[in-house]
Amino acid sequence: MLSREDLIRSFPILEREINGKKLVYFDNGATTLTPVEVTDAIKGFYDYHNANVHRGAHLLSNEATDMYESSRKAVAKFINAKTSEVIFTRGTTESINLFAYSIGKSGWLKDKEVLITTIEHHSNFVPWQQLAYTFDFTVQYYNPENGIFNLDEFLRNVNENTKLISITGLSNVTGQVIPIEEIIKFAHEKEILVHVDGAQLVPHFGIDVKKLDVDFLSFSGHKILGPMGIGIFYGKKKLLKKLPPFHYGGEMINWVSIENTDFAELPEKFQAGTPNVGGAVGLKAAIDYINKIGIDNIIEHDKRLTEYANKRFKELDFVTVYGPEDKTSIITFNVDNIHPHDVAQILSDKFGIAVRSGHLCAQPLLKQLGTKSVCRASFYFYNTEEEVDRLIEGLKYIREWLR
Amino acid sequence: MLSREDLIRSFPILEREINGKKLVYFDNGATTLTPVEVTDAIKGFYDYHNANVHRGAHLLSNEATDMYESSRKAVAKFINAKTSEVIFTRGTTESINLFAYSIGKSGWLKDKEVLITTIEHHSNFVPWQQLAYTFDFTVQYYNPENGIFNLDEFLRNVNENTKLISITGLSNVTGQVIPIEEIIKFAHEKEILVHVDGAQLVPHFGIDVKKLDVDFLSFSGHKILGPMGIGIFYGKKKLLKKLPPFHYGGEMINWVSIENTDFAELPEKFQAGTPNVGGAVGLKAAIDYINKIGIDNIIEHDKRLTEYANKRFKELDFVTVYGPEDKTSIITFNVDNIHPHDVAQILSDKFGIAVRSGHLCAQPLLKQLGTKSVCRASFYFYNTEEEVDRLIEGLKYIREWLR
Repeated sequence: MLSREDLIRSFPILEREINGKKLVYFDNGATTLTPVEVTDAIKGFYDYHNANVHRGAHLLSNEATDMYESSRKAVAKFINAKTSEVIFTRGTTESINLFAYSIGKSGWLKDKEVLITTIEHHSNFVPWQQLAYTFDFTVQYYNPENGIFNLDEFLRNVNENTKLISITGLSNVTGQVIPIEEIIKFAHEKEILVHVDGAQLVPHFGIDVKKLDVDFLSFSGHKILGPMGIGIFYGKKKLLKKLPPFHYGGEMINWVSIENTDFAELPEKFQAGTPNVGGAVGLKAAIDYINKIGIDNIIEHDKRLTEYANKRFKELDFVTVYGPEDKTSIITFNVDNIHPHDVAQILSDKFGIAVRSGHLCAQPLLKQLGTKSVCRASFYFYNTEEEVDRLIEGLKYIREWLR
Repeated sequence: MLSREDLIRSFPILEREINGKKLVYFDNGATTLTPVEVTDAIKGFYDYHNANVHRGAHLLSNEATDMYESSRKAVAKFINAKTSEVIFTRGTTESINLFAYSIGKSGWLKDKEVLITTIEHHSNFVPWQQLAYTFDFTVQYYNPENGIFNLDEFLRNVNENTKLISITGLSNVTGQVIPIEEIIKFAHEKEILVHVDGAQLVPHFGIDVKKLDVDFLSFSGHKILGPMGIGIFYGKKKLLKKLPPFHYGGEMINWVSIENTDFAELPEKFQAGTPNVGGAVGLKAAIDYINKIGIDNIIEHDKRLTEYANKRFKELDFVTVYGPEDKTSIITFNVDNIHPHDVAQILSDKFGIAVRSGHLCAQPLLKQLGTKSVCRASFYFYNTEEEVDRLIEGLKYIREWLR
């Protein structure tokens, strides 16, 4: 993959020392590191091209518009979509809220069912649960034993009222890859629409929305090397055209009068207000970086590193690892009799290792796992086996120290 | 104010030449320039402290949380609010949508009236117009002649059904300052709530929400030296507590189960998903910069420069300037018989002057002004009388050239 030198050049944060130990960043499931290629692009935009986009006749505004729209093109190419199908949002959570409010308003779900699972991140759980009251639909929950998704079991929840499936492509807790291709095929035979929460999936596997035939997709910039505050909502053009807007304001209108308002065409219809141009510029640089590394190399690396970590974790008879054997980039675990918050804090303070602890924004899943709180080590292409070794050593130390 | 040297150090974009002419940036109403103090802060966050906030037990996450929350403190201090009253949004448009959806859902407006004006930006117009259908309220429009706001006329639109006034503090088209203090006093006597769109007001005048006693306030980071993708929604704590959440997902919950969800306290209740930490860090640096300059100096400068521009514009008998005599930081105009888009383009190409042209996201107001499109020169503290002179020269040239 990349040499340590190349890595440090792109990710100077990796040179940081925490109590004399080089940082090991294993919190990629929460947010990935941001290469200087991205931060330089953002700074370059603001320092030399800053302007608001569209409808500006002056040079800076035209430059900003070009930079903004070339980001949309890069995203469209990356996921194999049309540019008009790529909506810039603030992140996955806004993408799913946009979608849930919009399809709710459209009437498509009225008196019908949305099928989700309890392995969802709260961002793909709470909107459906709450908006069911507003838009008169019901939510069917597939609640798998031990939090392990089973396709046959899941599909048995589909019934004649099911109109939409909204499901993660990769669990942010167990690292399980969900067979979305099979789900989409099954759903489309029954005229059910499918939305995929790609927040964890897209950074690790990329996506081809055409090949997959997915109807709607959400993901975040900051989980794929980009800055925070920018994300993507994708929808098939013919479907997006039928959906009403969510946020109202400038940019998303064609004309406005006291009597009425006519909304703009795609993608502007869903993008009210001044867009996050700096964020879009950063996201483009992130995608360029991913393309340079090569998504196939990332898949290969993540697979190998997760297998290695899985193997090493098996050495630890005082650690519970959650979820199925087959997982990607995420190891969620608990150390017997030690609170995960303490584990995370000691790993950080004594070993410079950043893992997340808590409910991982997935309380219904944690309930199925029989715990309220966990530790999560989540990897990306810049992580190494040596870093995994340090984590294992750290856990052994904690066990000894606190036993 | 600042020497040219200091200005260039903070705003290197001002050194850009456009066809051999130094850039004159007069599009501050659309977005302000971003000092390197802000872009360095953003880059510094991502390069050395990047992490997701809250609930992380590791050092980076704690650092990011501190940086994020210290931005909220800086904003709170800047507008004289409590930190729990400061909600981070994507910008003014999202702030107003959040507010409109939330107060709509709350039932406060049911079968009642919201009073707005036709001098609003579309972001404070279209949400009310559209959500009136969803939440069963009506919108009363004060539609002033020639687009000039008159307090007595406006207040005559208040009736016993009026429950909310949502109004701009400073017109983004005419530069008219709206007497919001008087409006708020009048409204509160009748138990009417007041929301102020501060997108243009706050950068030029600052605001003291306590002294003003305003109930709700929205403004953007990118119009006050900050980055795009971050903005503020303020509300009085006792009122925000009564309002239901808008976006659903992580961060804004206390606990989640299949049966129900309990929402977090303020301000998290209104902040679903990974926040824009980099944006918040940038906004803090922007506010620090504003504080360094001093809001009183900005008020003084903007007043003087607008008066100067007003005086110089009077020399041009071929130019129509819109709105009242008394205005701040904004001169909106048309050149007789020349399309504003052409005016803006020639000003940019031949003189390096960036002005905006178009409907300025305020079509109902432009209708009152009797035009469909205008040019707007909008100033900020880094603009100078010499730059205004160049604009006047440019307009004279255009008149000669295209007559």
